[in-house]
Amino acid sequence: MHTGHLLQPLPAAGPDEALDTLLARGGVRVERIVSFGQASPDGFWYDQAEDEFVVLLAGRATLRFDDGRDVVLTPGVWVDIPAHRRHRVEATAAGEPTVWLAVFWPAAIDAAQPEPSHRAD
Amino acid sequence: MHTGHLLQPLPAAGPDEALDTLLARGGVRVERIVSFGQASPDGFWYDQAEDEFVVLLAGRATLRFDDGRDVVLTPGVWVDIPAHRRHRVEATAAGEPTVWLAVFWPAAIDAAQPEPSHRAD
Repeated sequence: MHTGHLLQPLPAAGPDEALDTLLARGGVRVERIVSFGQASPDGFWYDQAEDEFVVLLAGRATLRFDDGRDVVLTPGVWVDIPAHRRHRVEATAAGEPTVWLAVFWPAAIDAAQPEPSHRAD
Repeated sequence: MHTGHLLQPLPAAGPDEALDTLLARGGVRVERIVSFGQASPDGFWYDQAEDEFVVLLAGRATLRFDDGRDVVLTPGVWVDIPAHRRHRVEATAAGEPTVWLAVFWPAAIDAAQPEPSHRAD
């Protein structure tokens, strides 16, 4: 049994997001990510092999999805991001830390997903 | 992609804890649990087949483990509870909602764990 606190201490602000793996077991990984105004680089999209569940604990962030939908995260907002659902961090709060809790796990094999077919077009 | 808010709306206080499954996919289950002063019944211990990661979002709670250790949870405190680590909810805050985010997943087979042996005692 391990325990910790997501909000204290927080790492000092830096040029990069601060990432801590809180646990990794049985294929599941739990991370705390602290952002200080960072966003994804222009044109960059996450296309992850893993499923992800994320919830914001502090600060503010905007996730953009490849269908153009934006989700604004404030503390308490969670987002379920299936594997290969392309998204990017459009913005995180400037001047205060943004604290994310993220859970990653192997994507389920989706039996309803047809095999890619080779089409003649 | 699904999204929601852990803190609003909150269910009305009731005699039982309020449990919402936010997602269940690939063997992983994410639940929001809202307590209103409930605790585990006297003498009751959770002995779960699944691994659990829990973090408190609001309120206050005390988890007791079978080695006598108490963990007091306030917002931001997380606890990693491996399968079969016996524990109970000793207390949750009276007069305000206590909001837990809990993640459950199948326990990893621990290769270091010996098979139970049949002893002569």
